[in-house]
Amino acid sequence: MDKKVCVVAGGAGFIGVNLVRELLNRSCTVVVGDNISLGSFQDLTTLTQLSAQDCLLLDLSISSQVKELFTFALDTYGQIDEVWHLAANSDIPAGVNDPTVDLKDTFQTTFCLLNEARKLGIRKFNFASSSAVYGDWGSEPLKENLGPLKPISNYGAMKLASEAQICAAAESFLEVANIFRFPNVVGVPATHGVILDFFRKLQRTPDCLQVLGNGYQKKSYLHVSELIDAMLFVSDLPKHGRNAEIVNIGCSDSGILVREIASIVSNIASPSATIMFGDSDRGWLGDVPKFHYDTNYLRSLGWTPALSSHEAVERAAREIFESLQRHD
Amino acid sequence: MDKKVCVVAGGAGFIGVNLVRELLNRSCTVVVGDNISLGSFQDLTTLTQLSAQDCLLLDLSISSQVKELFTFALDTYGQIDEVWHLAANSDIPAGVNDPTVDLKDTFQTTFCLLNEARKLGIRKFNFASSSAVYGDWGSEPLKENLGPLKPISNYGAMKLASEAQICAAAESFLEVANIFRFPNVVGVPATHGVILDFFRKLQRTPDCLQVLGNGYQKKSYLHVSELIDAMLFVSDLPKHGRNAEIVNIGCSDSGILVREIASIVSNIASPSATIMFGDSDRGWLGDVPKFHYDTNYLRSLGWTPALSSHEAVERAAREIFESLQRHD
Repeated sequence: MDKKVCVVAGGAGFIGVNLVRELLNRSCTVVVGDNISLGSFQDLTTLTQLSAQDCLLLDLSISSQVKELFTFALDTYGQIDEVWHLAANSDIPAGVNDPTVDLKDTFQTTFCLLNEARKLGIRKFNFASSSAVYGDWGSEPLKENLGPLKPISNYGAMKLASEAQICAAAESFLEVANIFRFPNVVGVPATHGVILDFFRKLQRTPDCLQVLGNGYQKKSYLHVSELIDAMLFVSDLPKHGRNAEIVNIGCSDSGILVREIASIVSNIASPSATIMFGDSDRGWLGDVPKFHYDTNYLRSLGWTPALSSHEAVERAAREIFESLQRHD
Repeated sequence: MDKKVCVVAGGAGFIGVNLVRELLNRSCTVVVGDNISLGSFQDLTTLTQLSAQDCLLLDLSISSQVKELFTFALDTYGQIDEVWHLAANSDIPAGVNDPTVDLKDTFQTTFCLLNEARKLGIRKFNFASSSAVYGDWGSEPLKENLGPLKPISNYGAMKLASEAQICAAAESFLEVANIFRFPNVVGVPATHGVILDFFRKLQRTPDCLQVLGNGYQKKSYLHVSELIDAMLFVSDLPKHGRNAEIVNIGCSDSGILVREIASIVSNIASPSATIMFGDSDRGWLGDVPKFHYDTNYLRSLGWTPALSSHEAVERAAREIFESLQRHD
């Protein structure tokens, strides 16, 4: 049997690197396209099964560069079995200040990948969407069939726009389209996020950890290894249903408080530090104070996470701490 | 009191012309921007309260041209109270063949209008969305809170993308955002749609009307005069709720069969014509065979339509027929 050929857009980012590693472990051929805006090819070069020539530095919001990526994979390996689209602006506050950031990096990447996939007859598309498509529902459980969707950040808006375009593509030319709505994901190589922020703050001021907001924002977290496992599980299921498949991926618990995360990080890096809190129930404009993620559909498909949000954060915090020590 | 200043993007199109007329009737100042891809400024010039200089020929998918529109309105009238965004590709099959059509005319118009509105401090945005955002739900009533939304056309996808971007804007800088999900709308000046198609077919072959599909596609239709009335009713309500308001606008009945529309048109234009049907339950790729539109939310706000779908189609058919005779 031929090896499955996977093109991973955004494969040099945090989640991309973990996906590429696991695809290689499962004997797939992998070609990566990435603008390395936040990631770097350095993490990918540690993967011995991946050759440097299969990592292409490209801006995937530009059609001609998407075409270059697909053409390289087709010319080199003869086929493209799956496109994994993880390319996006992952800096939500940056997109708040300038909507064109998410337009280009979060939505136009999707549009160009789909449009070139259509021209080249690519039939399977897996997409990293986000819980940010839901907007702010307070404590109401976020289920895939919730509506209307009113994203409150440009990032969430452009993820929803991407979902919409994928659904239309699933009607017209894709055979399989999986839309994975990610929760907050933790692990290494971390490029952003609350755990890394806390470690960096403690590097600057080891005596004091200043938390944005009052620390009662509650979110569920999934460890990146489990996210990858869940996506591959769903992607390998036999196709059921004509349309795009939309699946919340996440931890089933109600989440962990930001103040608990602060304690975990502080205990690892600087146990004697004082933790200070702000007044607001939001860390930044576009932040959602708390949400409960409904993952019953994913469970019904047959996948459950092994780690709680608390365990995922603890494991990721240790990994990030070790990684920071290696790089310092 | 100052006259309200309204900027109408896409104001030269079918629905735009009717909206502009009614805004002028209500003593608003109106500035129109349109690329006249399907409409023309000719219909607007019949409106005596509107001066030619207030109709700007612009491509609103380009930021600089949106800026030109808003700057003209601000320089001339000192303020912009409301933006009405009706600009879109309205030729769904064209968008099936080439996704960039809807990207540019349906979504980038929204993006550019919002982004320039943000820079200029514009606070109120009314948007013409579409039932096409829902996708194909068979006979299930289409309610605003339905999910997940899986549009099956690029047009529907880019309307949903627009909604998403408006919701994010409502969180960050807009005070009021109304998203009107349109049903099928009929009336004059018709530029496309099933009634006009049937009249044109009968002009070419007066003895025979060939219907695409089996004629059992069932859709609800609203007369354009009622659509405008409903939008202005909702737009003038006191703001309630923090987020964007999403409202289905439509007729409350279960709709009218395509074969009934064929009879109405045939009876007007060519009563002795034979009506011929195809086999498919869809007229074209991306067409939804039937849908039931739930307008209970609009009713709960206090607005109900006066005409049934059947009455709306009958009235529109007479108007379109008269209009065709004038132009021939």
